[in-house]
Amino acid sequence: MARAGTLYTAHGSVPTPIFCPVGTQATVKTLSPDDLVALDAPMILSNTYHLHLRPSAELIDRLGGLHRFMAWPRAILTDSGGFQVFSLQGLRRVSDDGVVFKSHLDGSEHEFTPERVVEIQQLLGSDIAMVLDECAVPHERIYVMEAMRRTHLWAERCQRAHTRSGQLLFGIVQGGIFEDLRAESARVLRQMDFPGYAIGGLSVGESKAEMHAVLEAVTPLLPSDRPRYLMGVGSPEDLVEGVARGIDVFDCVLPTRLARNGAVLTRDGRLNLRNAANKEDTRPIEADCSCYTCRTFTRAYLRHLVISSEVLGLRLNSIHNVHFMLQLARDLRQAVLGGTFADFRAAFWSRYQVADSPRAHPQTARKTTTRTTRGEL
Amino acid sequence: MARAGTLYTAHGSVPTPIFCPVGTQATVKTLSPDDLVALDAPMILSNTYHLHLRPSAELIDRLGGLHRFMAWPRAILTDSGGFQVFSLQGLRRVSDDGVVFKSHLDGSEHEFTPERVVEIQQLLGSDIAMVLDECAVPHERIYVMEAMRRTHLWAERCQRAHTRSGQLLFGIVQGGIFEDLRAESARVLRQMDFPGYAIGGLSVGESKAEMHAVLEAVTPLLPSDRPRYLMGVGSPEDLVEGVARGIDVFDCVLPTRLARNGAVLTRDGRLNLRNAANKEDTRPIEADCSCYTCRTFTRAYLRHLVISSEVLGLRLNSIHNVHFMLQLARDLRQAVLGGTFADFRAAFWSRYQVADSPRAHPQTARKTTTRTTRGEL
Repeated sequence: MARAGTLYTAHGSVPTPIFCPVGTQATVKTLSPDDLVALDAPMILSNTYHLHLRPSAELIDRLGGLHRFMAWPRAILTDSGGFQVFSLQGLRRVSDDGVVFKSHLDGSEHEFTPERVVEIQQLLGSDIAMVLDECAVPHERIYVMEAMRRTHLWAERCQRAHTRSGQLLFGIVQGGIFEDLRAESARVLRQMDFPGYAIGGLSVGESKAEMHAVLEAVTPLLPSDRPRYLMGVGSPEDLVEGVARGIDVFDCVLPTRLARNGAVLTRDGRLNLRNAANKEDTRPIEADCSCYTCRTFTRAYLRHLVISSEVLGLRLNSIHNVHFMLQLARDLRQAVLGGTFADFRAAFWSRYQVADSPRAHPQTARKTTTRTTRGEL
Repeated sequence: MARAGTLYTAHGSVPTPIFCPVGTQATVKTLSPDDLVALDAPMILSNTYHLHLRPSAELIDRLGGLHRFMAWPRAILTDSGGFQVFSLQGLRRVSDDGVVFKSHLDGSEHEFTPERVVEIQQLLGSDIAMVLDECAVPHERIYVMEAMRRTHLWAERCQRAHTRSGQLLFGIVQGGIFEDLRAESARVLRQMDFPGYAIGGLSVGESKAEMHAVLEAVTPLLPSDRPRYLMGVGSPEDLVEGVARGIDVFDCVLPTRLARNGAVLTRDGRLNLRNAANKEDTRPIEADCSCYTCRTFTRAYLRHLVISSEVLGLRLNSIHNVHFMLQLARDLRQAVLGGTFADFRAAFWSRYQVADSPRAHPQTARKTTTRTTRGEL
């Protein structure tokens, strides 16, 4: 199922597979647009929920749109805000009309309808907009069925409301961990003929095996000439296994969040810079890495910055981790184009150690992995 | 007294007058070496006290010295650590031998002697090292006299201990606000024939008028062929008025600290980006400023970053403020060389509004201006 392609947007073409760094509040945390261009990131994600609350889509529109506001010349993908709203425990009221919620900033009441989230994303002027969807608890079949029905209803209303030329509106497949519901959702959305399809409601507490089974059930049912976007998923191992199952586009806060916690990505797995082992280590994070951080600084210095809570460390680690993800996407693309994907995948797993995180233990994941991992605050 | 010159160091020549950004913990907060090179900063200051405690001069020496550790290719000036130690209220025991103090990090006991601070700075490998001095409460004449006597004693011992070729050791004039003591200190130190002279013990609670009187008493007594460094002083108005009184080198945390608080420097004075007036302002901080921040971002976006507590805002504001100080130093130099300094100074004051800070009110300054403004934590 692994594939390589090109996603054409109004702000440049995006070679796939691709990883999108997350710029929740109109900034990929700690990185400037210049940094991201130097890293050759073709597309970033920004969060509609957060920008709606602050500074508001109307203000960004008056200032010339999101690209000009944040001085980012390349592609921007915005989510619909639905995921964040459904993450606000006890702060929402959902009906077929839409969802009423209270701002996490000041408690003020807001409503997202399918028409409103399309309007907001049109004001932001993102290159790819998403339909409003309802993200259910993935194992509760009755809830998942109801959320899927509503998601399909909202997808149609979003499609009718969408008028901005040059902006692509993607549909979102829901259905929890249930392969039959996922297949139904994929078929319904395919009939609506979206220019791209996202797979939502994953990485919210289910196991990796469950996520992989869902992907295997869904991607064969999606049109092969449309991009497939796995929302909110994007660890290194997720990229490799997602590509293996036909995914083209990934986004996740993990690489930048890890960076700010002093953990950097290597082909052997995560490296915690705080460890005393790095105290006198004059090596870069990775010897053959071409990022500014690895070309310039030792592990000993990066550890000093982390231990000393220096802001520069947040940025240098973020530069490396975003580079790591983008380089992995480039390598995956090359492997697919060269017909060596299976070898690449085997070589990746021969070195890469998955971190001992909640995600690795499905039985605890539901407790510790909260949905608020989407969007970076 | 205004003058322009060149300070030659082992890591490049420094055109004077010059402002040195402060890199307390081997990093100018939020800025990378690449940023500082792009800003064309020829010299930074780093703090011996902080580097001694963490990660230690011995470790930095084993890692190849401070330049290599922080990947900074240009000049570094280190202070002696004395100022920080004498700022630790109740944490010190001073005698002619040296000063025993407790670390603010973990309470461990350390001793700075003249020989030890020279050794530390030699291990760091800075281009300009400072003698150990005692910084007294500036208005207490008896204390000031005793501190001055000890400062002169320590200056001799530092000079004897100093062996690192290529590293310049500067003497420090003390004497509080008392012009006769300052003159005596200048005469004593001049006899020791240092390659450069600092004026210490200022900007610690005295009024601007008192500081100016001290400068006017001291600089005529210093050799005209040696650089003069006004320690820990460096607001825009301090640069103009310091240069007018024969100062060549300045350092201060103010520009970078203001930046992290959301205040940026302009030729009209400080601009608080949080102000609602900036909410929809599409202008840069300064229309004719050539820094990356002003070339790229609007006040509206910078305000959004500050309001949203985004790390990028800290860096973008720091880039502007450091650029502002370096450009001011370049402009001062050009004015001196062109014989138009008096006009430049008048033009500066015709626009520049001094901020309503504690420093502007001498009667409250002693309470609110703490010595810990030196070094950035």
